[in-house]
Amino acid sequence: MKELKEKILAEGKNMGGGILNVNSFLNHQVDCELMVHIGQELAERFASDNANKILTAEISGIAPALEVGVALGVPVVFARKIWSVTMPKNCHVRMVPSHTKGTMVQLIVAPDFLNKGDRVLIIDDFLATGRTIEALAHIVGESDADLVGFGAVIEKAFEGGRARLAAFNVPIESVVIIESMEGDKIVFR
Amino acid sequence: MKELKEKILAEGKNMGGGILNVNSFLNHQVDCELMVHIGQELAERFASDNANKILTAEISGIAPALEVGVALGVPVVFARKIWSVTMPKNCHVRMVPSHTKGTMVQLIVAPDFLNKGDRVLIIDDFLATGRTIEALAHIVGESDADLVGFGAVIEKAFEGGRARLAAFNVPIESVVIIESMEGDKIVFR
Repeated sequence: MKELKEKILAEGKNMGGGILNVNSFLNHQVDCELMVHIGQELAERFASDNANKILTAEISGIAPALEVGVALGVPVVFARKIWSVTMPKNCHVRMVPSHTKGTMVQLIVAPDFLNKGDRVLIIDDFLATGRTIEALAHIVGESDADLVGFGAVIEKAFEGGRARLAAFNVPIESVVIIESMEGDKIVFR
Repeated sequence: MKELKEKILAEGKNMGGGILNVNSFLNHQVDCELMVHIGQELAERFASDNANKILTAEISGIAPALEVGVALGVPVVFARKIWSVTMPKNCHVRMVPSHTKGTMVQLIVAPDFLNKGDRVLIIDDFLATGRTIEALAHIVGESDADLVGFGAVIEKAFEGGRARLAAFNVPIESVVIIESMEGDKIVFR
């Protein structure tokens, strides 16, 4: 997707250690028009998979997941990281490491919103190590819903996420794939 | 907005203590079509205010803010609650109490995304005590940007937020206003 590649080259900051700072349009400020286009692009790639639900993880997954949901006309569930009094006690929970925060975080999903027969498409901002998406996929499995695919806005191919997710045997689509981030460069596949 | 009132009556749960559980369409699962309509409604109400930026707070503010941003064609900045390595060290920071978590949370905004001359519309899911929106407004003030209004999806009139925000002297718009939540009732104004 040319529009996203150009945005990454113009505004993305390679901070070293494989960290791509896209706070100006994805992780802190959101370019709404670009996000709509990203949502449409991912929706097209999964158009034939008949997803009836999107699952993502707060926080930065919400914006792209919402625009995929708008494009496909299906609801979005975002896994919460902190339990609140409005959540039931029997939630699905997985722990995953946070790349940019250096801690473990929880992903919590109320069982009410993932049911047997649901066809779930998992969307996230980044596909890096794949651990967050893998945890979401395990939650889908635990809920007896069917997993139909993984979609990411930006894939960092050098962090091995695609290999980690291969065992789920569903399509994996990334809007753009970054091959390497040596030095201060950002090289697309 | 009839569509939202009907959704609240059909799916909202009055959990007592003034807590309205709308996890099925706003705070955990998002009804994308409804969210688009909410975004359009708030965008219309602020159409003449020439906002060039939306400010909200993660997490549940993101979805409505994004759809207002899409409708108005302007970017959305979401205040982060946890600092990450992609954020600068000189961020705007405010502490606010979290109603549903019983703790204080931080609201953190990088100075890069709020500038002198910006016309900022603050959007959030709930207007309850008004403390989160007030903290965001103080961040706007600290950044020398201009505040143009406050918009919320659901206002709980009995928690006094509107009075708290009156001092900012900008329009306050809520898509629906709940007058009271005595017993298990939900009464709209």
